[in-house]
Amino acid sequence: MTDILTHSTGETATVNESDGIVLGANQYGKAEVRVVKVTRDTDRHEIEDLSVSSQLRGDFQAAHLDGDNGHVVATDTQKNTIFCFAREGVGSPEAFLLRLSDHFTSSFDWVTGGRWSAESYGWERIQVGGEGHDHSFVRKGQETRTALVVADGDQRHVIAGLFGLTVLKTTRSGFEGYPKDRYTSLPETKDRILATDVTARWRYVADADTRELDFNAIYDDVKRLLLEEFTHNFSAALQATMFDMGRVVLVKHPEIAEIRFSLPNNHHFVVDLEPYGVENPNEVFFASDRPYGLIEAAVTREGQAEVPQAWEAANPFC
Amino acid sequence: MTDILTHSTGETATVNESDGIVLGANQYGKAEVRVVKVTRDTDRHEIEDLSVSSQLRGDFQAAHLDGDNGHVVATDTQKNTIFCFAREGVGSPEAFLLRLSDHFTSSFDWVTGGRWSAESYGWERIQVGGEGHDHSFVRKGQETRTALVVADGDQRHVIAGLFGLTVLKTTRSGFEGYPKDRYTSLPETKDRILATDVTARWRYVADADTRELDFNAIYDDVKRLLLEEFTHNFSAALQATMFDMGRVVLVKHPEIAEIRFSLPNNHHFVVDLEPYGVENPNEVFFASDRPYGLIEAAVTREGQAEVPQAWEAANPFC
Amino acid sequence: MTDILTHSTGETATVNESDGIVLGANQYGKAEVRVVKVTRDTDRHEIEDLSVSSQLRGDFQAAHLDGDNGHVVATDTQKNTIFCFAREGVGSPEAFLLRLSDHFTSSFDWVTGGRWSAESYGWERIQVGGEGHDHSFVRKGQETRTALVVADGDQRHVIAGLFGLTVLKTTRSGFEGYPKDRYTSLPETKDRILATDVTARWRYVADADTRELDFNAIYDDVKRLLLEEFTHNFSAALQATMFDMGRVVLVKHPEIAEIRFSLPNNHHFVVDLEPYGVENPNEVFFASDRPYGLIEAAVTREGQAEVPQAWEAANPFC
Amino acid sequence: MTDILTHSTGETATVNESDGIVLGANQYGKAEVRVVKVTRDTDRHEIEDLSVSSQLRGDFQAAHLDGDNGHVVATDTQKNTIFCFAREGVGSPEAFLLRLSDHFTSSFDWVTGGRWSAESYGWERIQVGGEGHDHSFVRKGQETRTALVVADGDQRHVIAGLFGLTVLKTTRSGFEGYPKDRYTSLPETKDRILATDVTARWRYVADADTRELDFNAIYDDVKRLLLEEFTHNFSAALQATMFDMGRVVLVKHPEIAEIRFSLPNNHHFVVDLEPYGVENPNEVFFASDRPYGLIEAAVTREGQAEVPQAWEAANPFC
Repeated sequence: MTDILTHSTGETATVNESDGIVLGANQYGKAEVRVVKVTRDTDRHEIEDLSVSSQLRGDFQAAHLDGDNGHVVATDTQKNTIFCFAREGVGSPEAFLLRLSDHFTSSFDWVTGGRWSAESYGWERIQVGGEGHDHSFVRKGQETRTALVVADGDQRHVIAGLFGLTVLKTTRSGFEGYPKDRYTSLPETKDRILATDVTARWRYVADADTRELDFNAIYDDVKRLLLEEFTHNFSAALQATMFDMGRVVLVKHPEIAEIRFSLPNNHHFVVDLEPYGVENPNEVFFASDRPYGLIEAAVTREGQAEVPQAWEAANPFC
Repeated sequence: MTDILTHSTGETATVNESDGIVLGANQYGKAEVRVVKVTRDTDRHEIEDLSVSSQLRGDFQAAHLDGDNGHVVATDTQKNTIFCFAREGVGSPEAFLLRLSDHFTSSFDWVTGGRWSAESYGWERIQVGGEGHDHSFVRKGQETRTALVVADGDQRHVIAGLFGLTVLKTTRSGFEGYPKDRYTSLPETKDRILATDVTARWRYVADADTRELDFNAIYDDVKRLLLEEFTHNFSAALQATMFDMGRVVLVKHPEIAEIRFSLPNNHHFVVDLEPYGVENPNEVFFASDRPYGLIEAAVTREGQAEVPQAWEAANPFC
Repeated sequence: MTDILTHSTGETATVNESDGIVLGANQYGKAEVRVVKVTRDTDRHEIEDLSVSSQLRGDFQAAHLDGDNGHVVATDTQKNTIFCFAREGVGSPEAFLLRLSDHFTSSFDWVTGGRWSAESYGWERIQVGGEGHDHSFVRKGQETRTALVVADGDQRHVIAGLFGLTVLKTTRSGFEGYPKDRYTSLPETKDRILATDVTARWRYVADADTRELDFNAIYDDVKRLLLEEFTHNFSAALQATMFDMGRVVLVKHPEIAEIRFSLPNNHHFVVDLEPYGVENPNEVFFASDRPYGLIEAAVTREGQAEVPQAWEAANPFC
Repeated sequence: MTDILTHSTGETATVNESDGIVLGANQYGKAEVRVVKVTRDTDRHEIEDLSVSSQLRGDFQAAHLDGDNGHVVATDTQKNTIFCFAREGVGSPEAFLLRLSDHFTSSFDWVTGGRWSAESYGWERIQVGGEGHDHSFVRKGQETRTALVVADGDQRHVIAGLFGLTVLKTTRSGFEGYPKDRYTSLPETKDRILATDVTARWRYVADADTRELDFNAIYDDVKRLLLEEFTHNFSAALQATMFDMGRVVLVKHPEIAEIRFSLPNNHHFVVDLEPYGVENPNEVFFASDRPYGLIEAAVTREGQAEVPQAWEAANPFC
């Protein structure tokens, strides 16, 4: 076979179909559709604010290999569907994504699965004279809520989460007893600042009742537990605190199968002020940007089957 | 004069001093010193979290023209000073910056002024069992507070502010009566979403009592007024709402000389769902990123002198 | 006068017009219109890629105080105008902005000035077989080019610039001879890395011929000069190098009145490897994020009038 | 069992060990160590600029469950190791990460694997008088190069890649023949702009010779092929173009086992200028931010085993 990819003769070059190169895993769709739903049935309006992504999986071989788009539900169509579905209400990000997943897998024979994900942004009513206003809101800031539905045929995996929840304790954290080698210079400490930006995702048990869960209420409670547990116990290391945070969530929420964390250790270094004749008894810190520790783990239940395809879908494709 | 800048003979080239090129306005220092101050006099800790920048102005001619650093207080020294001063407490960003300004202008003859600025990040106590924890905190998110002190000899200008305060009202906003020309296609509306990210800065009256102000309490009240006033009145345009917000601040706070705003009009477009057989009575919106309206103004007091040098220092040099 | 701002009786509250609160400086328009112009007169296409902002100044009192939009040329109209004008070609960002400024100030009596700014993004032809492709491009990366036109009646100020041009020299930079005080601990050095991200803006001489300048060619040459001059001379401090860079631009380009710089000193700290038994003769560096030095100055011509209103417009309003 | 997690009695609460909650997958280390290596053996300096992350896997059970750090090689130690290893040269990011992986897995019995990743930033010599300068550099901009080594016992997976390579073709792209449903309104087109930011990762065949590869040369060639292939052929959809780009890389590089892409479809919409009496024959486009299409796939070889654990490590943990 001559090297047909040289393109030396211009754009008419074609590729030998027998080169053994094949299409692997793939998905496509519309990302970050910024939909804001206002419910105005009464004078007291409600607002839901989401960034929704839809990606389809199935038989898209012809589009990749032959330039045949007969199966390619346009990403523009996916976007329109998201807006139309929002007209009927969101409810919770998870419920909304489940509805989208059902629509796409049932509407097109060759769509056998997909992933639908959302970020949602919290708003609270502006306080006027001690009361929340009917139709004026201020964005909460703080963490961003995430949701993901992975469809594989009839099966649904639901993963909820959050990121950007920044917490800090000014004491009752230390780091001691670690191994020392040639490259170790870090002094042990019994008292340091512990700070992190919580990224967490929890996967719901996949059974018939999952769709009936009150995802909004569970979200609020998981956030509360994460914050509370962060305060408890002396932290021997971020690893131990992270595991405690995960454990309390699983103990309190049997509907959650497992929880994963990615926690930067946001270093706050005590500034050495001695050269300037100033003592510094753990009062003045330099908040460092990079590098940072990065502590990650899954907390799960004994003997439970792993669901790698759900977690794979939670993350960027490449 | 031969063209002495060709460098054709390598790095020994020098520049003719009589070319009439001179140094104009200049300032230098250390930017974004991330200082966290923990006050731990009792078991109930307090936290102050700042990003502080220090820039000096004065006679730095020799450094620029002759490579003579005799006047260049090292930016590293400015950083160390910030950390040392934090040891004695922050109090309010404005008070902290005033102390820094006094230090630098009084310590070095040739430092005749400068600008000291800070962002500060709010933290709130994590709630455990209905009570705020002693030493565990969660970052508030929402807006970032800003502060600026400009020193010009003995004079001090103090400008406080905030950015990233995102507000939205779902109704009682319209846009009508604007001029139409060949390029106008926007339809008039009596009911739209109004949304913006508030950036505001207010300048305190420069008099002997400024240093005695309770900057933290004023900040909280200005934020409250901005939020409340955003809810009031039908908004004929963001311009009118912005002016109302500024006016109420000035009326309530005689210690504030003027206030400036930069308000993006964060467009929320009603999605046309008619092609899909779905009505949309102002319920489903697309939140657009770019382009966006940008509405900016100063609200000030009649007959009051302008202080352009203070505002010039509030912004990037170039 | 009773305090009419309490809003205690609801939204009917109005503000006393005699409170002495007035509108100060103001401007408004559409920001970040992302316009891509393809010229396809022949098979060899050209591409121009801009983010354009338009802001009008003039008599907008009624919009702010009375909710009367009779003078408010809609920001949507400004956006449409930008797209329509792009149809006739861009040419250079500066020339494009000048045309926009003329249009708006001549079309509406009450528009007495404004600011029009642009970022532009460079593309280069993809190389295929050693030749640039006719219609396939790769974005250059590296710096972003900026342009600004400020209109004040018939007057026009043109400021060009760039940001994000990151340069570094591995030697022939030091820092010595600076004053030492109680807070100084920085050691002097004769050999360090000097690195910065160049932000520069240069203002063109305002005269009749400005509009005839070849702004694209000048831009390329100024960039070349900035890069070349950064390499020349031992750097006694970033201040000295910055001034040299500005001086060469002014010497070579009489059509440029002044140039301003904002240069972070991107610290690269030699890592102390001695604790690990490894010598480090200025070979391994830690590139720090924050804090950083920030060195800023204008380089200008002797006896030349300052034009603060042009520079004020170059920066954020607040 | 009483609910021991209530913490109602304060921080003395402990968790019942028999709750069936266990530690799942985990990893930890230091992220984004910004190391710059200058090679100055001669007057012609070389620069290597990396952001390196190190994460260890193995037996870290005790740290999570018991607060016992006996196995926790400090993230600070990992950072120091990176700097020390850089002293001996980088060579290529992949080779550097392989050395780190060997060090950590051989130095600590309980470290059975891990992931080491890097971004690297390109610099080019500043041109002075037509020649590249000896020690002055300008950052290239354009794409960021990535590298990843996953260690699982003695096994090594090496994945190289890039992101941020923005390409655009002004013609020879269309989108037709897609299915239409109730939510479809997109018109078919034979001529549109095709633009994307290429994110690609390619996994090297895991065999004895992998370590001997010239990773830098392969990187350059893969980038060249991706750019060239983007220009070839009419694009029936981004899917088809993406597959072509992957295929050419695999055909030309037998040492590469598979390649993955994540390609946003950066929409450039033709602006409808007809309302303003202006025709627009595909010359003026609006470059939209969000939403965007997102097209992702693996291109691989027939019959080849999948290596999900390598790809799982390429992405965020959660």
